[in-house]
Amino acid sequence: MRQVGRCRAHTNIALIKYWGKRNDELFLPMNSSLSLTLDAFYTDTEVVLDSDFTSDTFFLNDVKQDKKETEKITKFLNLFRNEVNMETKACVKSYNHVPTAAGLASSASAFSALAGAMNQASGLNLDPKTLSTYARRGSGSATRSIYGGFVEWYMGEDDLSETSHAIPVDDASWDIGMIVIAVNTGRKKLSSRVGMKQTIATSPFYSSWVETATSDLTKMKDAIKQKDFITLGEITESNGMKMHATMLGAFPPISYWEPDSVKAIQTVKEIRGMGIPCYVTMDAGPNVKVLCKASDMTKIEELLLKEFKREQIIPTTVGEGIKLLSDSEWNY
Amino acid sequence: MRQVGRCRAHTNIALIKYWGKRNDELFLPMNSSLSLTLDAFYTDTEVVLDSDFTSDTFFLNDVKQDKKETEKITKFLNLFRNEVNMETKACVKSYNHVPTAAGLASSASAFSALAGAMNQASGLNLDPKTLSTYARRGSGSATRSIYGGFVEWYMGEDDLSETSHAIPVDDASWDIGMIVIAVNTGRKKLSSRVGMKQTIATSPFYSSWVETATSDLTKMKDAIKQKDFITLGEITESNGMKMHATMLGAFPPISYWEPDSVKAIQTVKEIRGMGIPCYVTMDAGPNVKVLCKASDMTKIEELLLKEFKREQIIPTTVGEGIKLLSDSEWNY
Repeated sequence: MRQVGRCRAHTNIALIKYWGKRNDELFLPMNSSLSLTLDAFYTDTEVVLDSDFTSDTFFLNDVKQDKKETEKITKFLNLFRNEVNMETKACVKSYNHVPTAAGLASSASAFSALAGAMNQASGLNLDPKTLSTYARRGSGSATRSIYGGFVEWYMGEDDLSETSHAIPVDDASWDIGMIVIAVNTGRKKLSSRVGMKQTIATSPFYSSWVETATSDLTKMKDAIKQKDFITLGEITESNGMKMHATMLGAFPPISYWEPDSVKAIQTVKEIRGMGIPCYVTMDAGPNVKVLCKASDMTKIEELLLKEFKREQIIPTTVGEGIKLLSDSEWNY
Repeated sequence: MRQVGRCRAHTNIALIKYWGKRNDELFLPMNSSLSLTLDAFYTDTEVVLDSDFTSDTFFLNDVKQDKKETEKITKFLNLFRNEVNMETKACVKSYNHVPTAAGLASSASAFSALAGAMNQASGLNLDPKTLSTYARRGSGSATRSIYGGFVEWYMGEDDLSETSHAIPVDDASWDIGMIVIAVNTGRKKLSSRVGMKQTIATSPFYSSWVETATSDLTKMKDAIKQKDFITLGEITESNGMKMHATMLGAFPPISYWEPDSVKAIQTVKEIRGMGIPCYVTMDAGPNVKVLCKASDMTKIEELLLKEFKREQIIPTTVGEGIKLLSDSEWNY
């Protein structure tokens, strides 16, 4: 028996942030979040299930991964295998298309693409909504990469895994773009997982963060419905800063900012002062992402180039949801 | 009639921060705070009351100040004149001894020295505790500069001005020092007054900030009692970051940080990683202050000089409270 699945998934950047789990094992978040799927960054993944295989193997960009990395994949694939009472081993090949300089976490596109490929290979054929609850078990942010455009990750109820899933909000086909300013591409010193746990345990601001993120989400969905870019941008910038504020309130304080992160934030503020609407957001790392109108991207890039190097500026338009890849589309 | 008063007051840096008033007119704070008085930065002020004067005049570093600045002084002096039913006009001469590069706010030492000089000139002769409630009406942080060493500014009760005063906590004569890293000495873009009001009005973290500052203060007073430098430093760094986090939560977000502020924070963290206890605190501006042991200052200065220029590094030991200056001590 040999079954094959191949899938492409794009990464996404949260505009309403996810920072903290209410259930670590099931990756159930403390609050609902909302993201924009990006075209420029994606992962292509192939899953081959073959009854002749004696163990799971995992290749990333053609490099065989070690036991620890492979075990994460095995654990994830078992979610599908358990559903169909299958014990067949898999060979997984993933190719990350994220410019090295971007320094973006690839776990969102990685687990979303893996979920899509395994969904096909296993013959489970879950609908996208249910598939997003599987992607979530690999990495929280992978939940949102199932869909394109603006996507909500609904937090769900209690400890019920099936209730915490992605919802497509809007295809973002109304002049939306994003520019990544790559500040530092080294490995971050504190993982998101550890940073989240420390924030929940020690930051006096955490419960207010959850409340404010929840009300920001409602306002942002309204702004998207009305295609109100200014309000969308203002909430994006405010919400991201509030997440970083919540971390800064932890003991000891957590900050992912580098000197150039501040320079990027100041530069974007200056560009906005010139009358070009653009807003920053940051995740658990020093890079700065700029939400802007797609039609303003060239102008903003030129202004950023006065402060940053060419290779630090990576523009992208809006990405689509996951899609299965045919033989002819699999060019590896 | 001619009466003269002359006083020196040192500036202070809050280790438990003051950020927000419950009564704007009376400068009554939302929470109690705690500071360290610094030796290197001070203001000398002379008040001459003379029945021949027809209006108040104010000279700062020998430069006659404009109407707006002079009116602030008049309003402040009236607090004393009203108590003794006096209408005599004053000539005020102030000399600020704050290295230009330090970029430190001088309002703490300025209003504390002015209070001390007017207390003598007016013949009111208030005790230090009561005098601190007068200094407070010029600038909140001036309350604490009445005393030396570690000083608490007790928030007081309700709208009762006389209950919100300074309390000497400890003379800090146990190997305590501070190094100012001057990042940017330009005028700040957003005044503390406006920043505070915007934070109170819009930050979802504000009420938690007041609670956490209150419990930090109790812990810090314990650490001072036990001469526990590590705990003192950890609370200092955490409390300062929480104040900045609270501002970052405002809408729109408030940040006084510059790229070099982050560089300074990172450098201090590295020095701490070498086993030298030192901790940062920041106020409503980009400069970074390093709380350390006086006996470690030379070593820390050398390490900071790898990243910053000589003139950016200003070490200081602990300062004393206000003192009256005799004729022979007035060398202007």
